[in-house]
Amino acid sequence: MAIPEKQILVCQSFRAGGDPKGVCFKQTDGFLQYMEEEILARGLDILITATGCMKLCEKGPIMVVQPDNWWFGGVDSEEAIDAILDGIEAGEPCAEYLLS
Amino acid sequence: MAIPEKQILVCQSFRAGGDPKGVCFKQTDGFLQYMEEEILARGLDILITATGCMKLCEKGPIMVVQPDNWWFGGVDSEEAIDAILDGIEAGEPCAEYLLS
Repeated sequence: MAIPEKQILVCQSFRAGGDPKGVCFKQTDGFLQYMEEEILARGLDILITATGCMKLCEKGPIMVVQPDNWWFGGVDSEEAIDAILDGIEAGEPCAEYLLS
Repeated sequence: MAIPEKQILVCQSFRAGGDPKGVCFKQTDGFLQYMEEEILARGLDILITATGCMKLCEKGPIMVVQPDNWWFGGVDSEEAIDAILDGIEAGEPCAEYLLS
């Protein structure tokens, strides 16, 4: 695999031993699969990367788009993911979920 | 916590169930702790984020610096980490480990 154009980091709050925990993991069941399918359907060059805790649990579920450095909170539905992907395609971060 | 200036993504190849596996995990034992200490010592605003597989296993261990979008491979020693952190401070990616 070549280096992808973008990455979407999806907090799954893996602990040191690997155990996934926390609000970001509990509220995103099935989202990774959904995102992979959406990215394929849209023809985007984006790597979905599950991560350990990104230290913003109170604003979770957290997703980050890099290298844009867009941080999103409250991403708890497929509609939210769609809005974020629409924003990536438009070149503007989706304001509704954007953290600052 | 506020949004950090940078993130260093450290592949730990977490599987869906959380279990860490693979070359990136096996060759980086203790590196997360070392990086946290180095970042504190250097006074850098960088979040260390452990991740699931970043699909470049054959070039692992993999680390990515965002939002610079610098991808590094073969990061298998504290000396390699020091070189990468030196590069971040200098504003230039460490050429020795840089993937393109």
